[in-house]
Parts: sequence; C-alpha cells; structure tokens
Amino acid sequence: MDEAILKLLKKHDSSFLSGEEIARRLKVTRTTVWKRIKELEQMGYEIEASTRAGYRLVSSPDLLAPWEVEPLLRTKRLGKPVHYFQTLDSTNARAYQLASKGSREGEVVVAESQEKGRGRLGRQWFSPPFLNLYASVILRPEIPPSQAPLLTLMAAVATAETVEQFSGLRPLIKWPNDILLGNRKIAGLLNEMHSEMDRVHFVILGIGVNLNVDSESFPPEIRHLATSLKRETGEAVSRRVFFSSLLQNLEKWYDSFLKEGRGSVLEAWRDWARIKGKKVRVTSFGEVVTGIAIDIDSDGALILKTKDGRQKRVVAGDVEYTKTK
Amino acid sequence: MDEAILKLLKKHDSSFLSGEEIARRLKVTRTTVWKRIKELEQMGYEIEASTRAGYRLVSSPDLLAPWEVEPLLRTKRLGKPVHYFQTLDSTNARAYQLASKGSREGEVVVAESQEKGRGRLGRQWFSPPFLNLYASVILRPEIPPSQAPLLTLMAAVATAETVEQFSGLRPLIKWPNDILLGNRKIAGLLNEMHSEMDRVHFVILGIGVNLNVDSESFPPEIRHLATSLKRETGEAVSRRVFFSSLLQNLEKWYDSFLKEGRGSVLEAWRDWARIKGKKVRVTSFGEVVTGIAIDIDSDGALILKTKDGRQKRVVAGDVEYTKTK
Repeated sequence: MDEAILKLLKKHDSSFLSGEEIARRLKVTRTTVWKRIKELEQMGYEIEASTRAGYRLVSSPDLLAPWEVEPLLRTKRLGKPVHYFQTLDSTNARAYQLASKGSREGEVVVAESQEKGRGRLGRQWFSPPFLNLYASVILRPEIPPSQAPLLTLMAAVATAETVEQFSGLRPLIKWPNDILLGNRKIAGLLNEMHSEMDRVHFVILGIGVNLNVDSESFPPEIRHLATSLKRETGEAVSRRVFFSSLLQNLEKWYDSFLKEGRGSVLEAWRDWARIKGKKVRVTSFGEVVTGIAIDIDSDGALILKTKDGRQKRVVAGDVEYTKTK
Repeated sequence: MDEAILKLLKKHDSSFLSGEEIARRLKVTRTTVWKRIKELEQMGYEIEASTRAGYRLVSSPDLLAPWEVEPLLRTKRLGKPVHYFQTLDSTNARAYQLASKGSREGEVVVAESQEKGRGRLGRQWFSPPFLNLYASVILRPEIPPSQAPLLTLMAAVATAETVEQFSGLRPLIKWPNDILLGNRKIAGLLNEMHSEMDRVHFVILGIGVNLNVDSESFPPEIRHLATSLKRETGEAVSRRVFFSSLLQNLEKWYDSFLKEGRGSVLEAWRDWARIKGKKVRVTSFGEVVTGIAIDIDSDGALILKTKDGRQKRVVAGDVEYTKTK
C-alpha cells in the first residue's frame, strides 16, 4: 500500500483536496491518483470524490496497519516497527522466522486473520478476519530460560490490564496464561522461545484477544467457553487503539521486569489471578493432579496442596477450576 | 552416493568380484559399475581392479557416513537416521531446521566439516574436514524448559565417558559444558532448544570433539587452550567408532534421565567435574563473580561461596578456574 496519498488526505482532515494538487505533491499522474484512491476504498477507506473539488477522506476503517497504529503508539521500543499482514498462517510462526533471521527486540507481527492460529499445546485459536487482535512481539531479554515463564506472567498482566481499561470490567488470569471475563476466555497467550541451555536468544509473545467478534460466530464447541470484549460490554472497541494500548502496557511491565526484577510482576499477577484457595485440577505431562491452589512461586510455578496434605509444585499444564470461589 | 556397490564389495570382504557379476546383481551396465567404482575411489575407498578377476575392496576411509556408521550402531533411537553432509554451515543450524519441520527424536546431523562451526555465546568452533566430530542430536523430551540444563550435563557426561573409553585418560568436565583433557579443551557442547514457556518442543544437542587434528593445525589463538585425542594419546582414533560409541553412551544416559530422573546424571556429572573447592571466576550476563565452587544444585546451576561468605547461584556464564587444585 502506498501510504503517501492517505497521509495527505488525513492531513487535510475533512476538507477537499483536488486530484491535480495531489498529483503535483506526490509527483504522479492524475490517473495514478485515481487508482490509489480506488485501492484505499477497497481497503475500507470512505472517500468522497467530487469532480469540482477533488477528494475528501470521510472515514477510516479500523485496521491494524502500521499507518493507523503507529501514530497512536507512545512506546519506545515495542511496535518499532509493526509488520502487518492481511492474513498469515500464524503470527507466532512469522515472528519466529523474523527473529531467527535477526529481527530486533520490539518488532511486532500483526495480522487481520490467521489461517492456522495456534493456541497452547498445538490447539487451534479461532482467528476470523478484521474482528480481533492477533499479534506477536519479539523480545530479546538477557535472561536464562528458567526465567522465561515470568514473561508469560508479565504478558498476562499487561493483557488483563488492557482488557480492564477497555471494558471497565475486572478480568481474571487463569494460570498460567488465559484471561477470563465472566468465566469465559477473552484472551490467550502462546509464548515460544529459542535459547541455549543457559541463555535466551529470543522470546515470542503471542497474544490473541477476542475484541469485536459476536458470540454466535464462535465455533459451537467453544461458544460456551469463549467471549469477546464486544459481547461483555455490548459495544465494539477500536482495535487499533486497543492494540497500541496493549503494546504500551506491555512495554511498561517489561521495563519494570528488566529494571526491578520479578517482584512487581509477580505481585500484579497474584492480584489479577486471585488463585489462593481455588480448587483446581491440573493436567501436566499426562498426569492429573487435584488440590487447593496455594500460590505461585518466584519462578511462576503453581503450588498446590493435594488431598493428602502435601505441597506439589507444577511448572506446566492445563488448569481447570473445579469450583468457583 | 549409491551404496549398493559398496555393500556388495564389503560383503565379499577381501575377495575379488567381477565387474560382470556386479553389473548383473545391481542390474546396471558394466560402464556404470566402472563409474561408481571411480566415485568410491574419489571418496577415499581403496579398490584393487584386475581385468581378469574384477574388483576388490582393499580399505575404507574413516567417514562418518551412515553406511559406515549404522552397521556399528547399537542404539534403539539415536542415530536413526544419521543425516550426513560433506560440509555444512553448522550441524546445529541444520538440525534445528530439520526439527522445526518435524524430524523425530534421535535423528542426528553429522558433517565432515563446518564452515561456520559455532560455540557458545556466538563464538566459533574450529571445524577442519575429515579429522574431528561435529554432530547434532535431536531430542524431544517431555520436560519444562527449566529442566533442559540437565540435558547439557547429561551430554557432557556421555562425552567425557566416551573420551575416557578411547583415551584411557580421565577428562574433566568444566561447568557447564566443556570437556578438558590435560587442562585443554577437547570437546564442547552447544545445546539449543525451541520451547513454549512451560514445555520443550525440541532440544538440539550439538557436540564437537577434537579427534585426529594435530596441535599445529589449531589457530594460534586457541592452540594453547585446545587439544585432541590424537595429541593426548599419540594415536589416531577411528572417528566412526568414536561417533557410534558416543551415541550409545548418550542414549544410555538419556534413557536413565527419562526413566529415573535427574539423580544419576547429577551424580555422574559431579564425579567428572570434581568442582567442589575450586577457585572460580564466572562471567555471567556481563557481571563477574569470583568465589569457591561448592556444588551444582538439582537444576544444574553453579553454587559459589563468595569472599564475603555468602552463597551465590549462577545459572549461566563462562567459568575460569583461577587456581588448579
């Protein structure tokens, strides 16, 4: 997409700009101007054309494109740049590829839809076009792999915070990486890393948030388990504003983690998760453990008290709350 | 390489086989037989040709090719198959690529030389052709990333054991992953992984062992730091036999790790490392720590006692022994 013409129209806000003037400023022919206007209309930009006065931008679609998102970004590193795609197999796979080839910390991949959207443990992530957020952030922290789970907690905290800002409702983090609103999943994280045994090369924070999808659109098998911001609040949210706020919150927590260590991340996570005392059933590497959640430890592992009174530490797995507190 | 003709010659050991007979058995022309014989000679196979009696295999070169290595392998999974290359950028990079595309546990990449042989922390690994061993093993253990350092310890133990078997000398493991003989580095490990935050997808165990390289061949800047099996024992070793023994030892320790947990690996590592009481200087994420080594903990981290009497846990870094015990 050629952004120059869009920038011109946006700059002139709601006033007309003649085709001749646009052609002169961009050093192209009037036919080229006309073609590009048609392209913009194809993408959802509403442009009024008058043979006398020229062109006027009436409204912009809610795209996650860099030319829409970057003007909103108040971050120093995250989203610099945003790699934008109409569709991808999965944003994580593309980000992993980019990072393998040397992309820097803070680069973000975002797509309007995913053909093979992935959740944890090889599951699918429902990824319809132009309704939700599917983004993957490349980080290159100087930490050992054992500290990487803290980045999952961090991403969950930043996502929960953003969901609260846009819904006015208080989400719940379900260990380790689901965000629930009204007991249904509104966001999920899939974090991957490439590392040596004692040193992380890069981490990909994959974040999927259900924003404007209607509940009837969910596949039947997850309809009772999933929700969206629109479903919970009754109103559509601006995806680009949500996206830029999320990156801002992420950067804030990431900076705090790098500068001050894990303390504040753990504290915030505990606050959002309210996990203490919950009855849980955990499936971890094929084994099922039930018990009462006590806390998470400083590495982000879940500490349970089992029926026989012993403490058990769980580093990985799927959690079910067997009884809501 | 067409292995069929080599198999026939090997089967007939030191007796002659006529070109006509070979052509008949392989269903090819006698000219094709002649061409393939020339190919084998190019690779270093010594073949006696007699117009009357035919062809006879006199000797085989010490290649790491699957047709030379697989007949020696007594493993169940490791080295099934061996992916063999004359040269690669790096065996780790190729193994990582293969694993990303779905290669299974136990597949091994081996190369006669590496153009960009890599050591830890982005360093180079000296990789001249046909003299040493450069191999990368794909593993897919069902463990969290925090347990992955134990695989580094495991690989170090298996390598040290193999070096001892072939040299009759007792090597020393230097935390976390160097193998020393006579205080010089004879082998190094570069292990990488791809994982979710709580679950390993695959691990690449990269193993480089200096076998038959002469000390004068080492680049001057590492000559006083590096050694080879040949240098220490005065005799060349069969690389294919060493390679197959190493895979066998690795499989034994890997099975033990999967079945019985970390206990026996840690115990063996401690035995090979004799680290207790050593004065060390560790560079870890830009920070320098000096102290007396106490032990490694159950996650493979190094525990030091610093000058002021406090204990410090180091998960990553470069170790220097400041005084040999």
